[in-house]
Amino acid sequence: MPAADGSVGVAAIGYAFMGKAHSGAWRNVNAYFDVPRVRRQVLVGRNQAAVSAAAERFGWDETATDWRAVLERDDIDIVDIMTPGHLHAEIAIAALQAGKHVIVEKPLANSLEQAIAMAAAAEAANANGQRAIVNFNYRRVPAVALAKQLIDEGRIGPIRHVRASYLQDWLADPSSPMSWRLRKEEAGSGALGDLGSHLTDLVLHLTGESITELSGGMRTFVTERPSGESGDGAIGGKGGADGPMEAVTVDDAAWATAQLSGGGVAQLEVTRMARGRKNGLRIELYGELGSIAFDLERLNELEFFDGAAGDGRQGFTRILVTEAGHPWVGAWWPDGHIIGWEHAFTHQFAQLLTDLRDGGESSPSFADGLAVQRVLDAIERSALAGGSPVRV
Amino acid sequence: MPAADGSVGVAAIGYAFMGKAHSGAWRNVNAYFDVPRVRRQVLVGRNQAAVSAAAERFGWDETATDWRAVLERDDIDIVDIMTPGHLHAEIAIAALQAGKHVIVEKPLANSLEQAIAMAAAAEAANANGQRAIVNFNYRRVPAVALAKQLIDEGRIGPIRHVRASYLQDWLADPSSPMSWRLRKEEAGSGALGDLGSHLTDLVLHLTGESITELSGGMRTFVTERPSGESGDGAIGGKGGADGPMEAVTVDDAAWATAQLSGGGVAQLEVTRMARGRKNGLRIELYGELGSIAFDLERLNELEFFDGAAGDGRQGFTRILVTEAGHPWVGAWWPDGHIIGWEHAFTHQFAQLLTDLRDGGESSPSFADGLAVQRVLDAIERSALAGGSPVRV
Amino acid sequence: MPAADGSVGVAAIGYAFMGKAHSGAWRNVNAYFDVPRVRRQVLVGRNQAAVSAAAERFGWDETATDWRAVLERDDIDIVDIMTPGHLHAEIAIAALQAGKHVIVEKPLANSLEQAIAMAAAAEAANANGQRAIVNFNYRRVPAVALAKQLIDEGRIGPIRHVRASYLQDWLADPSSPMSWRLRKEEAGSGALGDLGSHLTDLVLHLTGESITELSGGMRTFVTERPSGESGDGAIGGKGGADGPMEAVTVDDAAWATAQLSGGGVAQLEVTRMARGRKNGLRIELYGELGSIAFDLERLNELEFFDGAAGDGRQGFTRILVTEAGHPWVGAWWPDGHIIGWEHAFTHQFAQLLTDLRDGGESSPSFADGLAVQRVLDAIERSALAGGSPVRV
Amino acid sequence: MPAADGSVGVAAIGYAFMGKAHSGAWRNVNAYFDVPRVRRQVLVGRNQAAVSAAAERFGWDETATDWRAVLERDDIDIVDIMTPGHLHAEIAIAALQAGKHVIVEKPLANSLEQAIAMAAAAEAANANGQRAIVNFNYRRVPAVALAKQLIDEGRIGPIRHVRASYLQDWLADPSSPMSWRLRKEEAGSGALGDLGSHLTDLVLHLTGESITELSGGMRTFVTERPSGESGDGAIGGKGGADGPMEAVTVDDAAWATAQLSGGGVAQLEVTRMARGRKNGLRIELYGELGSIAFDLERLNELEFFDGAAGDGRQGFTRILVTEAGHPWVGAWWPDGHIIGWEHAFTHQFAQLLTDLRDGGESSPSFADGLAVQRVLDAIERSALAGGSPVRV
Repeated sequence: MPAADGSVGVAAIGYAFMGKAHSGAWRNVNAYFDVPRVRRQVLVGRNQAAVSAAAERFGWDETATDWRAVLERDDIDIVDIMTPGHLHAEIAIAALQAGKHVIVEKPLANSLEQAIAMAAAAEAANANGQRAIVNFNYRRVPAVALAKQLIDEGRIGPIRHVRASYLQDWLADPSSPMSWRLRKEEAGSGALGDLGSHLTDLVLHLTGESITELSGGMRTFVTERPSGESGDGAIGGKGGADGPMEAVTVDDAAWATAQLSGGGVAQLEVTRMARGRKNGLRIELYGELGSIAFDLERLNELEFFDGAAGDGRQGFTRILVTEAGHPWVGAWWPDGHIIGWEHAFTHQFAQLLTDLRDGGESSPSFADGLAVQRVLDAIERSALAGGSPVRV
Repeated sequence: MPAADGSVGVAAIGYAFMGKAHSGAWRNVNAYFDVPRVRRQVLVGRNQAAVSAAAERFGWDETATDWRAVLERDDIDIVDIMTPGHLHAEIAIAALQAGKHVIVEKPLANSLEQAIAMAAAAEAANANGQRAIVNFNYRRVPAVALAKQLIDEGRIGPIRHVRASYLQDWLADPSSPMSWRLRKEEAGSGALGDLGSHLTDLVLHLTGESITELSGGMRTFVTERPSGESGDGAIGGKGGADGPMEAVTVDDAAWATAQLSGGGVAQLEVTRMARGRKNGLRIELYGELGSIAFDLERLNELEFFDGAAGDGRQGFTRILVTEAGHPWVGAWWPDGHIIGWEHAFTHQFAQLLTDLRDGGESSPSFADGLAVQRVLDAIERSALAGGSPVRV
Repeated sequence: MPAADGSVGVAAIGYAFMGKAHSGAWRNVNAYFDVPRVRRQVLVGRNQAAVSAAAERFGWDETATDWRAVLERDDIDIVDIMTPGHLHAEIAIAALQAGKHVIVEKPLANSLEQAIAMAAAAEAANANGQRAIVNFNYRRVPAVALAKQLIDEGRIGPIRHVRASYLQDWLADPSSPMSWRLRKEEAGSGALGDLGSHLTDLVLHLTGESITELSGGMRTFVTERPSGESGDGAIGGKGGADGPMEAVTVDDAAWATAQLSGGGVAQLEVTRMARGRKNGLRIELYGELGSIAFDLERLNELEFFDGAAGDGRQGFTRILVTEAGHPWVGAWWPDGHIIGWEHAFTHQFAQLLTDLRDGGESSPSFADGLAVQRVLDAIERSALAGGSPVRV
Repeated sequence: MPAADGSVGVAAIGYAFMGKAHSGAWRNVNAYFDVPRVRRQVLVGRNQAAVSAAAERFGWDETATDWRAVLERDDIDIVDIMTPGHLHAEIAIAALQAGKHVIVEKPLANSLEQAIAMAAAAEAANANGQRAIVNFNYRRVPAVALAKQLIDEGRIGPIRHVRASYLQDWLADPSSPMSWRLRKEEAGSGALGDLGSHLTDLVLHLTGESITELSGGMRTFVTERPSGESGDGAIGGKGGADGPMEAVTVDDAAWATAQLSGGGVAQLEVTRMARGRKNGLRIELYGELGSIAFDLERLNELEFFDGAAGDGRQGFTRILVTEAGHPWVGAWWPDGHIIGWEHAFTHQFAQLLTDLRDGGESSPSFADGLAVQRVLDAIERSALAGGSPVRV
């Protein structure tokens, strides 16, 4: 499937917030990583004028408005899907059936049923050497990857407590306008799927454990909002819109207390209503021997408490994860020169391109995405049951 | 009851960790606050030799081994109870019946039944002008008191999320020895009562709301420990004891997700197993207009996010709560000269002495202690029910 | 000079560390900013094989080994000079004489004489509408730009103290190898020019004042090093090289106490020997009304102390400079999604492209670079005089 | 000289800010440390009414207005001098001649001449077993003592850079009133002596080196102030006084760049004009192998960068210096329970009492105070010489 010159052709579907981020990663990955050359072949969107402008700006060779036609092209190796969640399943399954590698933005799907179908399709295609990944790109933040290394090396020991939260505040103001992200039929859920999927994946990925049971809840603090949304559904719209009111049909916040298969307990909380937290994904893992803390607003740093350090010399060490020996960092700048949020995408795509070249499995797989979906589904079920514990 | 010279006589029961802290507060309160003069009259303990040594060291005039005899003395105005929790109810009720003002270390009692009886006794005595308080002294940390002021002024608006945790690590090591704090018959519970009572009181006090329903859990990660405990039950004993093993009958950790009466949600977690957190009580309150964060390990600081600050100038402000205009601080040092953990006791006692002089009510009352106890009891009930939600 | 389509052609001279950074900025600026379209026309270097590989990787259309020939091309509008400092003057002056706009990496030159000649050439070319800038790109870090706004608005008042340091540690290990950066004939100076130029520019830029007098010093702690340098002179080479020893002929550290024209005083210090500081440019400005602190290792944050804030509510506010209303940030991501070190370059180039399109002056000008050079020269003169104060 | 029961009698001269702090230390030292019992015998001050009130409040047995008479008493072992600096020499020398142990608040004296005389007197008295210390009590902050341990163990290696500043802001407001601290005849100097003496002592103490040469400066930013001072010369008076204006005759700020005997360089800066820094003594020491940072506003913490830590695991470790094994901490509370600024005094007095009991030398000695005074004098000389370097 790859071109004779070893390059890979990409079709990207979606050109708003995620389209901008993904395009940047595709545009830059070859400058920093030794991976197959990327051809930014075609950018796909429903609105021809808008997609043309985006393609010009973001650097794509062509545009298209019909994603089905794109799937038939021989020069496309990877289909990168960034549509609203309700379209993920249809497009991803079709792309896999058309023989493409597939990337889907998180969360994998809007429902557990869709996620199951997608994982099945991915498994079938895997036999043909096709790779299907869900973009839990925070795994590729160097500090998170270092945390994973430390945990896998046994540096914090068996995990007893995980404290995980993803706090934003762009909906704290009740006059912030509607967007597709607040409509259940398009977004599936609110904070739960958008933020909870990232957070859940990090808990599962970092601990290497599963969640067996949980009790959870969801809440919509602001039940209707002015309908003056911005065109591209971008997050972060400011208040002041004064259109007619429209019902918010997703959650503003969700939470769970989860039992880990290794015997520990995890508290998770996600919200778009936490004043002052802008992109506040924080995760703390406490083990018998040590602990780790990470904050996405300071994503170049990792805090590590090493219980094996000398008596009286213990404390949380702020590791500035910007050294050549740190995961992914060798590709970038000298020590202490920080990288931005966007490069978790760059790293994730570099990983996929490497895996494609080397013929290995790639991750986070659709199965990983399904595992997350099962947790999100359990939170929803528990919430509907008034917080009663449910099996995952 | 007070002496002719307006001074008040104190009898303190207990002389270990809390005895040391309370004694310091009694010894120093007159040097910093304009309150009735304190006579440190008698220190009470079962072991005559030990209590004599403590009295000499901590500065008490006399000692006694029989607390009942002390209650009969006319020169005692305040009885300050710092025994293990299973003795609180008996002593406190007797002291109230003997006409004394009473201070009880937290948690108020080891069981809900005891707490109810104590609150009833306090209410009866209140008609006689007697005051009965439970020592949730963290209310008197200047930064916490400032937080309360900001919240009461409406600076953070209706509260949507409370994130509260009290993390310690002195039991993280499985070889740390037993102590009375790990035996249910003496301590009542483990982290739940010891840490959870403080944390719950702060949630109730700061929000000014009640908890209506919760689902919670408890866990004992290390189910037996070597019995080589230190004599005074001090926390923080190091590992390495090699006595015979003894069963741990209290929880190492507890947690809850609680519904606040104002419509918000609170996640609480307490543990003695979180490596690297030494006295890590952290509470974050997120309101519609602003938010607040506090960390007991940096107890002279308060973080305040003011959503009313100018656009583009918003952020968490680290207020160094050491200025003369801050609560309690005028008594101490110039700006920036921090005070220690011990002075939350000094402030609490100054408050009580002021209330006694002025004839006002005093707090935190036994009713406050009972409200906390109801929450702790609900957590235990929910835990027993596998995490199912229960009414408080 | 611009092409008919409004695009501008760039020739870049240099392809090592700075070449990588500049290339990235040129490659990305059009995706985020509405500026004239950039043609990455030609990458210039002495080694044909190396420059070809770099051009392929970084995305340049052509390569060249003779910069003089490139200056004669009509399709080149901007010449971007990233050579070692001893070549800056010759190339920049020739490029200006050839009618090009010029960007020079900092420091402007290796000597005051060269800087004076360059500033004169720039002034002459300016009359022809040519722009010549020196790449003090840290001015374009959003948090620094916000600091400048706050200062210009008078929010901190007259400045009394500036504490400025730029601390790195890549030479702390005496066994770290030689590089061209440690040879005076190529680099001109060590920490003084490399780090001190950035730091001095920030002091001058942020205060809007000049330095009238200073006393300073320089030191070489490790006077010889193994000669096993890496090929591209990259900073951050690890120790362990075991070639023959070679004399270090530049400073490891430099410092000055400087009198500001507004009556304040600034302490400056730069070093490559401060263990643990990786890219630790920190600047604190204390004024009569407020103060500001910035740390390049956390470049998305600004700390602002507002003396006009309410009594008892004052403190350093950590502004996460990632909101759409903050300088440069609107082009990027939603609130809280941090950007990396590299985008100070992107912003600087966006600024130049905007200025070219709009016909305005551009900055930091060669005159700004010369002002910095006069300060660096004064530090060297004072150091030679044993620290005696000298006029700038 | 000690009483038959081994107790020691103290006479304290001064009862304002320092009197309050010293009294607290004397009142509490026996409760926490196993040292000879302290008799708080007599508090001395010029104003009988004021000193009586202070003695009552702070817990002294008697008062006196004539310090000379007090020196003749047999029941006084230690004379603790907290007067304004111009009285230090006379009282201290007389007290030594009267056979007393002496404590002098820092700085040792207002002039180098006085300091020399005092050191000579102390040396003479030392032969009689008398101890004379200057109260550089910050040496006794646990985190500072831990820093000293780490440095003495060689953990940071030879020191190359010291960055030391002591920043306050209580004079930032030009309308803050006069006080004796701003009059040269009483205070000797301003920030230089008050803050610079502490800072210099820490530099000398922690490095274990001397300062051989320096260039420095001093500045008075606000040259006259309203004369409405508060009675006790307390620092921190707020603005708004509207008395007649009076000339400020001391410095608001001072600074120096100092050459260390070990080959490193230190930048020092002290000021009372740095908005937002309340008690901001910060010292950073960078060695060949590691580094250390301390901030008095977070005095229970020490940051330690260990260059010997594993590759990729290095960073600044925030040590919460509250563990039983840390210097001085065993006397206090469990891990994580922080202590306040005041207990550096308690520790210093515990140290002296221990030294008296054990017959050892005690420190910081008057010789240490003289060493600091020589540095302060050099800064003044350099300042008068326009910043020219001078030998210490």
